[in-house]
Amino acid sequence: MAARGEMNTDRALLVDLYELTMAAAYFQHHIECQATFELFVRHLPPERSYLVASGLDSALTFLENLHFTEDDVRFLEQLPAFHTVSPEFFDYLRGFRFHGDVRAVQEGTLVFAEEPLLQVTAPVLEAQIAETYLLAVMHYETLVASKAARTVRAAGGRAVLEFGTRRAHGPEAGVRAARAACVGGCEATSNVLAGALYDLPLAGTAAHSWTQVFPSERRSFEALLETFPDTAILLVDTYDPLVGAEIAATLKTSIPGVRLDSGDLLEKSRHVREILDRHGRHDAKIVASGDLNEFKIEALVAGGAPIDSFGVGTDMVTSRDVPALSVVYKLVETITGGVAQPKTKFSEEKVYWPGRKQVFRYFQDGQYHHDLLARAQEDYPEALPLLEPVMREGHRLAAAPAVKQIRERTLANLACLPPAYQALSGAPVYPVEKSAKLDQLLGEVRAQHFGAVKSSR
Amino acid sequence: MAARGEMNTDRALLVDLYELTMAAAYFQHHIECQATFELFVRHLPPERSYLVASGLDSALTFLENLHFTEDDVRFLEQLPAFHTVSPEFFDYLRGFRFHGDVRAVQEGTLVFAEEPLLQVTAPVLEAQIAETYLLAVMHYETLVASKAARTVRAAGGRAVLEFGTRRAHGPEAGVRAARAACVGGCEATSNVLAGALYDLPLAGTAAHSWTQVFPSERRSFEALLETFPDTAILLVDTYDPLVGAEIAATLKTSIPGVRLDSGDLLEKSRHVREILDRHGRHDAKIVASGDLNEFKIEALVAGGAPIDSFGVGTDMVTSRDVPALSVVYKLVETITGGVAQPKTKFSEEKVYWPGRKQVFRYFQDGQYHHDLLARAQEDYPEALPLLEPVMREGHRLAAAPAVKQIRERTLANLACLPPAYQALSGAPVYPVEKSAKLDQLLGEVRAQHFGAVKSSR
Repeated sequence: MAARGEMNTDRALLVDLYELTMAAAYFQHHIECQATFELFVRHLPPERSYLVASGLDSALTFLENLHFTEDDVRFLEQLPAFHTVSPEFFDYLRGFRFHGDVRAVQEGTLVFAEEPLLQVTAPVLEAQIAETYLLAVMHYETLVASKAARTVRAAGGRAVLEFGTRRAHGPEAGVRAARAACVGGCEATSNVLAGALYDLPLAGTAAHSWTQVFPSERRSFEALLETFPDTAILLVDTYDPLVGAEIAATLKTSIPGVRLDSGDLLEKSRHVREILDRHGRHDAKIVASGDLNEFKIEALVAGGAPIDSFGVGTDMVTSRDVPALSVVYKLVETITGGVAQPKTKFSEEKVYWPGRKQVFRYFQDGQYHHDLLARAQEDYPEALPLLEPVMREGHRLAAAPAVKQIRERTLANLACLPPAYQALSGAPVYPVEKSAKLDQLLGEVRAQHFGAVKSSR
Repeated sequence: MAARGEMNTDRALLVDLYELTMAAAYFQHHIECQATFELFVRHLPPERSYLVASGLDSALTFLENLHFTEDDVRFLEQLPAFHTVSPEFFDYLRGFRFHGDVRAVQEGTLVFAEEPLLQVTAPVLEAQIAETYLLAVMHYETLVASKAARTVRAAGGRAVLEFGTRRAHGPEAGVRAARAACVGGCEATSNVLAGALYDLPLAGTAAHSWTQVFPSERRSFEALLETFPDTAILLVDTYDPLVGAEIAATLKTSIPGVRLDSGDLLEKSRHVREILDRHGRHDAKIVASGDLNEFKIEALVAGGAPIDSFGVGTDMVTSRDVPALSVVYKLVETITGGVAQPKTKFSEEKVYWPGRKQVFRYFQDGQYHHDLLARAQEDYPEALPLLEPVMREGHRLAAAPAVKQIRERTLANLACLPPAYQALSGAPVYPVEKSAKLDQLLGEVRAQHFGAVKSSR
């Protein structure tokens, strides 16, 4: 079995080229200031009213293990783009490690637009090199955890099973999706490697091909039950789901359950339930699958479909309606010789809040009321600060919690988010206020910048 | 540097649980028939009029290396779902290898709905176990190569650079996307690991943070050029793109180019070109980026934007408008004791063509005219058969071609596809006819199945 975290190691080359060219240029110019970068989503699309933070374990595992092998360095040395770079830089890479500090919101925490999920403070070169990978893991795992949370809510207490690896963006995305789906509230995954790496419950049924190989549907069901008498879920719709259900219900042994994968699942599940019950198979469960998403599940639940669990694949692992978020990793502060300089940019529509920040969450009657995005130095004792130290000088401050625990945190978080914000569509925007000091800082940075630009021309 | 193909090895557990439970049940029931599975896309969405086949190298590398480590087997042995499975099955897994034959369309070939990209013939257990992984790699790489081909076409001869790893579905998806984007026609990628693994040209510029770290934009440009005099592309829109361009154009050294990442790129690129030209910087290139896709690029090209290359990220690597295809891996035939039995299923809307197939491509005046989906045994000497043997008894028949060669094949294929089918929207459906013998076979399988169902009741 692959070691825990093996998805995130030996990946120093898994960066955009410009991280390494900038690193070389920082190195050659002896630019060694401390820099703070914050990773956040610029704005939520209309299809999402909250995000479930995920990916932190991957991010920290990556930072702890980040190093260049001799082969990595040799590859870079021979790149045409690097022929003007001094040999000292490559020696530096041979000994490179990440020595920075990281603050983050815990996985399973709900976050909103402009709120940092991760805050990295390190020598600028080290913080810069990590950009591509940190964005990629935080973005994707948060994307899937958020989609999963919507799906789980729609299921109204019935189990949601993650079945999507085959349509994920590559098999490794399937592993990440499985973990993130469980972070978002799914009960189990079909991805065996994810189960092994992250101690996730595994679930599965059978494929149409299983039934097709046998001379009769009945014989295929009997054979599967002979090997898996306690767990086999019989896929009954290879030919005709009602005929298949009748065959399953009249087997001589007990049957754990059946799966429907096509057609009108509301109507079919009712018929199948009737057939099972008529034969006294009250304990046999019905699993439904087939291009399901939160909207279809909501309709099935509202219609009273007698479905015990939903297998969800493509829509969840690709976050099909929103396959990407506007996630960025932005320089917010440099410290040179003890002097902090807040940073932002002013190109069109891309201004962001400068300076190191903290997110304060306000409660009312045990429910989330609003958030306040403020400067890191501010203090609001009546609110919960979301960003916590998780890494110091390149070392994790605590072992990663189990995914099962993170899942509990997600569900506890969702229980505190007023239901209006959890509507699958048309939810109001959760209020994220900005502190007066933060607003003042943006004004100062803008004035200082445009003053400097004028005086330099 | 990671060894070639390391993305696709040691991944026997990267499967859906049901592949392994079915394997156990096949094993215990001594079901050892040969099975042929075909991997195809059921139907193309309206946003896609063709697909560029990709992922075959990943698929074959996986099959060649597929094995279970001792740790893998021990993990499976202790799973509750497997407690009814006999110890002989786990011993079988310890020695498991894939011994099958594979036929496939070459990467870079254009394919359409219902046409097999891959045809796997092996003992049913071996062919079944490979399902999840084969679908995941073929689906994602084909998805991105197809999106890339549209993007490259829209650019009308200007370079398209793949910059998307940070928004891909995890960093590993970024590596796959980089390769697939180059298969689809991109000139280079920013993903360094993909460059190392697949010998792809690398490209990159600089981030806003580079400029922000310096006391002035001018100094940031000078510093980057000091380290990379021949290749530095200056990002000019951290504060104001026209001011940035003016600063770049008035540097004392020559400048390879500038990048614009925000705002109205048509208007901005014209102004920036004017500024560069006014200062005699006729050789300085303009790279544009910022949530680009084929439609925006088409409009920029149509508007005569003086942009030399387009950096494309999120839309390409997530195939944002179509983040998943209806790709499946279906049993089409079993052979038991020398007798072939064609297979399909009859559940609603999910019938597919039974039997082993071949795709015949017809030409007229050097252009693709139509395809014919036929039985594998049929022969149409006037047409080009697309499926070729690529693996026999678990061994590749030839080394994988270089991505650069595959890219040439893609471009040659596109040159043969009549332009109407390449319209970015509203393209007609490319005709894929079915042979009379294939149609007849479906009728026979249906008649036989429903006859058998009747007689068994």
